[in-house]
Amino acid sequence: MMVGRGLVNRCAALLALLLSLAVAPQARAEDGYALWLRYTPLEGEALARLEAFSPAIITGTDYLPTDTDEAAVEELERGIESLLGHPLPRRSERKGSILLRCHDNGRDVGDGSFTIRSTGTTIHIGGRDPRSCLYGAFALLRELSQGAHPLSIKLDEKPAMPLRLLNHWDNPEGTVERGYAGRSIFDWWTLPEHFDRRLIDYARANASLGINGTVVNNVGASPLFLTDAYVPKLARLADELRPYGIRIYISARFSAPVEVGGLPTADPLDPRVQAWWKTRADALYAAIPDFGGFLVKANSEGQPGPQDYGRTHAEGANLLARAIGDRGVVIWRAFVYSATDETDRAKQAYNEFVPLDGKFDDNVIVQVKNGPIDFQPREPFHPLFGAMPHTRLILETQITKEYLGFTTHLVFLAPMWKDVLDADTGRGASVAEVVQPAGMAGVANTGSDRTWSGSHFDQANWYAFGRLAWDPGLSSEAIAREWAAQTFSRAPQFLDAVVPMMLRSRQATVDYMTPLGLTHQMATGHHYGPGPWVCDLGRPEWNPCYYHRADAAGIGFDRTETGSNALEQYAPAVAARWRDPRTIDEDYLLWFHHVPWTFHTQSGRPLWDELVHRYDRGIEAVDGMARTWATLEPHVDAERFADVGDFLRVQQREARWWRDASLAYWQSLNGLPLPQGARMPEHSLDYYRALTFPEEPGHPHAPN
Amino acid sequence: MMVGRGLVNRCAALLALLLSLAVAPQARAEDGYALWLRYTPLEGEALARLEAFSPAIITGTDYLPTDTDEAAVEELERGIESLLGHPLPRRSERKGSILLRCHDNGRDVGDGSFTIRSTGTTIHIGGRDPRSCLYGAFALLRELSQGAHPLSIKLDEKPAMPLRLLNHWDNPEGTVERGYAGRSIFDWWTLPEHFDRRLIDYARANASLGINGTVVNNVGASPLFLTDAYVPKLARLADELRPYGIRIYISARFSAPVEVGGLPTADPLDPRVQAWWKTRADALYAAIPDFGGFLVKANSEGQPGPQDYGRTHAEGANLLARAIGDRGVVIWRAFVYSATDETDRAKQAYNEFVPLDGKFDDNVIVQVKNGPIDFQPREPFHPLFGAMPHTRLILETQITKEYLGFTTHLVFLAPMWKDVLDADTGRGASVAEVVQPAGMAGVANTGSDRTWSGSHFDQANWYAFGRLAWDPGLSSEAIAREWAAQTFSRAPQFLDAVVPMMLRSRQATVDYMTPLGLTHQMATGHHYGPGPWVCDLGRPEWNPCYYHRADAAGIGFDRTETGSNALEQYAPAVAARWRDPRTIDEDYLLWFHHVPWTFHTQSGRPLWDELVHRYDRGIEAVDGMARTWATLEPHVDAERFADVGDFLRVQQREARWWRDASLAYWQSLNGLPLPQGARMPEHSLDYYRALTFPEEPGHPHAPN
Repeated sequence: MMVGRGLVNRCAALLALLLSLAVAPQARAEDGYALWLRYTPLEGEALARLEAFSPAIITGTDYLPTDTDEAAVEELERGIESLLGHPLPRRSERKGSILLRCHDNGRDVGDGSFTIRSTGTTIHIGGRDPRSCLYGAFALLRELSQGAHPLSIKLDEKPAMPLRLLNHWDNPEGTVERGYAGRSIFDWWTLPEHFDRRLIDYARANASLGINGTVVNNVGASPLFLTDAYVPKLARLADELRPYGIRIYISARFSAPVEVGGLPTADPLDPRVQAWWKTRADALYAAIPDFGGFLVKANSEGQPGPQDYGRTHAEGANLLARAIGDRGVVIWRAFVYSATDETDRAKQAYNEFVPLDGKFDDNVIVQVKNGPIDFQPREPFHPLFGAMPHTRLILETQITKEYLGFTTHLVFLAPMWKDVLDADTGRGASVAEVVQPAGMAGVANTGSDRTWSGSHFDQANWYAFGRLAWDPGLSSEAIAREWAAQTFSRAPQFLDAVVPMMLRSRQATVDYMTPLGLTHQMATGHHYGPGPWVCDLGRPEWNPCYYHRADAAGIGFDRTETGSNALEQYAPAVAARWRDPRTIDEDYLLWFHHVPWTFHTQSGRPLWDELVHRYDRGIEAVDGMARTWATLEPHVDAERFADVGDFLRVQQREARWWRDASLAYWQSLNGLPLPQGARMPEHSLDYYRALTFPEEPGHPHAPN
Repeated sequence: MMVGRGLVNRCAALLALLLSLAVAPQARAEDGYALWLRYTPLEGEALARLEAFSPAIITGTDYLPTDTDEAAVEELERGIESLLGHPLPRRSERKGSILLRCHDNGRDVGDGSFTIRSTGTTIHIGGRDPRSCLYGAFALLRELSQGAHPLSIKLDEKPAMPLRLLNHWDNPEGTVERGYAGRSIFDWWTLPEHFDRRLIDYARANASLGINGTVVNNVGASPLFLTDAYVPKLARLADELRPYGIRIYISARFSAPVEVGGLPTADPLDPRVQAWWKTRADALYAAIPDFGGFLVKANSEGQPGPQDYGRTHAEGANLLARAIGDRGVVIWRAFVYSATDETDRAKQAYNEFVPLDGKFDDNVIVQVKNGPIDFQPREPFHPLFGAMPHTRLILETQITKEYLGFTTHLVFLAPMWKDVLDADTGRGASVAEVVQPAGMAGVANTGSDRTWSGSHFDQANWYAFGRLAWDPGLSSEAIAREWAAQTFSRAPQFLDAVVPMMLRSRQATVDYMTPLGLTHQMATGHHYGPGPWVCDLGRPEWNPCYYHRADAAGIGFDRTETGSNALEQYAPAVAARWRDPRTIDEDYLLWFHHVPWTFHTQSGRPLWDELVHRYDRGIEAVDGMARTWATLEPHVDAERFADVGDFLRVQQREARWWRDASLAYWQSLNGLPLPQGARMPEHSLDYYRALTFPEEPGHPHAPN
């Protein structure tokens, strides 16, 4: 059936209205799946400007468009049509154009840097490799989504760091360690024959942020990924993700030569072992020419490693690095603990790795967590940053909220990551500057849930990770604002309420979980809820007691000269800021100091009163978040509005649980009454100690 | 913004076109989520008829509409608007009407029977309880979806059996035993605060089939479901599913009084144990007045049960039945094995349960699997059917394809279930008649996957289960046809190709996996792929060798008088049909008989040649399915077309694997050459024996 253009034009306004009212909501299925790529139809002036622009999208005519160019064109068409609320007119009736020109002849010679400029009615997106156009397309859409004038968008962007990687802790049978968003998005069982199209949307989301690599399996690695059977599976995945500028990596199990290679040893100095890794690397590169490389967790938490053979981390890493050669990298985690006995777990990585500085091959990168313990709500930055000048370091962050209430607590993590990125190491550079030659890794929070991340607000953490890896100079506020505008609503009243709520959320969680520099007070195994009373686990550093060191007299871990002296691992200027409990930033007080319950804090309150005050402040902040959210109903679709409200109710209840259980325990030690006016814990300490959660999500283990 | 009706009318045709072309496809997101409730816009005459009808939907005016009425009205509006391809006109402009009248005053007095009649331009849906209107609404939409004339639809339907239940083998932490479609659809972790709206679509799908109950957790039951913490979670679920006519049940762990009740025993004759169960039942009924009851797996595969205390199954079942009283039922599984030593596992349930006939309380129902072993591709019907005249029996089927290739093999199960439902027990009734006072249970294949069932064609098995539980008289062909028409395309060319393909698929799988009455030849644990060589597991009946009994001379399990005499558990007339290997339906030959490799089969071929022929016939059938599907591209959306094709390729490869591995093993025993022209196995027996699949889905265990 042919339809005259005239009728179309006469009906256009009505169509747009009906599309937006009646159909778009259903088409857009506001279940969170669309992430920040919703491209909600514009309104008012912004809509009029985009209508007036109605661009043709053209790739540079002097080279053959690549798959990546095509992905960029497709995204621009999809995004602009969605922002308009109707299909673009046919080509002859378009008014402006977007010209994509990213050479050289599709070869991968650049870093994805791009420029956006306008001349007349044309927007030019340019750069030196196809990813430039892809990243430029998403950047343009991000601006348009926020209502920018198409022809006044002017951007010059260059990624701050070469590696912007997701680390998936996904197991081959589909479970996800510390995953709270359903099963793995990777279905190894049906690959290579079947490729789940959902992964194209995963790739789009990553490309929109500039994430350019993904480690597809858990660092507690199954050796299956190093078998022949997995080569075609990995190759199919790599082929499908490649147009979106994403390279794939695998976590490599150090003992794989024994487990799947049939060798009697995995000793890195054994020539058979060296030959085996070379063969595996060759098989992977034959199938995946741009294979990224290996990520390794070795001699940590029971994982095998070179120390099993009396070799160093450097000897282990170099074994794999030489198998890979100049084709890729080996990323070696510095998260080592429990392999040796330390007086202070916080010191171990520094002690093991600093002596190895300069001994790693050039294509080895050492991956260092943001803080010296383990993704706690607040930690000081890791002392390794700046302490290994001859080694490339990549910053490891955790997007999934292992220690931060899983998916039912709303915690925006950009402020936490900014803390570490902006930290001055005292060794001539900020952490962001230290990791600049390598990059950032984020432990993914993606899963098979329709929301991808298990909750709507956890999508913001995926987003923030990617944006900060691209540009660590962005502020948490700017990131929150652009995310919320694209994900929920661009109404200023909405943004002015939700952005401050997001920015406060991390401190709220610190306050109700581990205030004043307390750390690792979570229950055993699953890390959900409070467990400060746990003191009897096999190794000392598995116990919350080890971290709080509380007794009748006081609380806190003395890491000064009188204690473990972890402080000396930091540059002198940094150590000086933290040495004196009277002047330290009190967010780190009990991290570095053991002080009496009567210690006079900067507020003037004794420590015990200040502690209670901070727990209560956390609860008040969560209550405030819930109140704020309740006012935002006019701006949010019903399903997501209800979802977020439901989870905030859980968070309110659990913030009280954290406070009450913690206080009941501290009182059992110090015998102190609560400060005047403070609410009594709702239950007895025994009640809290008896709670168990055998159905807690997120702690499966890989089959080996 | 107000819009004049005139403009609307002038643009109506264009609107309809654009809606159907541009928007509907996206709105309908052909990822399989919509199941058979797609309501694809009608075309041609059928569309014109529905346009001319354009009904107002009205609930009976002399009683207050219930939530169930409202669900029915909502579904009719959604369905009819979708079938029209546009919103219904405003009420004053509707031409016909659908009148729902299902009393008495919303009380639950009927069984969901309904009638549909037309007078003038009104369709009347009537019945005696609100579920009548709900079931009637879905039945009407099923007819309309297939193009029926609205005003000539005349139906009188009455469910054949009172209980039409899904059994979910879902664990509280979200894994699913024998689940191949992602995680559990039930998120106990966020209930009761949060209710996933997806479960409303689950409820709609079940209601569309008349499924009226769901057992929410695995029969290998966690005692968590019997704790106080789970009462509000279960209550929220029950409240949300109730409008759709679905009652909830839980699987109860027999030892829960010890594990979560703090008692020293779970002995059914102990008054403390009796009081504990009464208290638990009371707590559940206080929160869920229509709670369905308990399902119990006892003294089977390591589960606790009354025999642990020297009591009988009847004493165990009556313990729970008395706690529940007349408020609900206890469904006690007859799937018992390994608790006692039997010469033939197939005999155990009969031997244990027949002596208990008449000893169960009135509200106990015994749940019997379709066959005496365990959901194999083909089994004779279970000898208990007809053998317990004083006990209500419910038929247990398995919708999830534990032994049938998981989700990547296309196997339509209606023919298998028809085999058992239609079987004449020889004791005066068919199996369908035997179970008529109780009903049918199906082990669900639902999960968090977007397709619900892990593959598009596995949705047909959920559908077929529900339709057969409603009316076991339906033919497999009728079910396949109405499912395919609603799910994919109502084009006759499509249906004429896909329906025969579906109907052949089960025999194909029997042929390439376990032809001629072989059974349980699957690999250990995960039950995927062939493992006929497995002979050394702890108990004899865990081994495929136990079932095939093959050696140099012959193959098959002698269940006649010269063997285990399982045959005598059947009625004489039935036993007579199966006693003679020369006249038996050869689909059951090796189930009942041990015969030499040279045995002359009815085809004239020696057994060995016939066996090879059947494996090859299975492969040819799968190849034919793949060829057929390839021709159907014009009728199927791109994504689902590709998905099905991908899985058929897996099935083609794996059918060959089954045949080749099995033949290599049989040859290692009988030393016989392959019949002339038969293809050699691709690999050696050692190759097949060495294959392992540690990442296989579907065999997690519940946390206790």
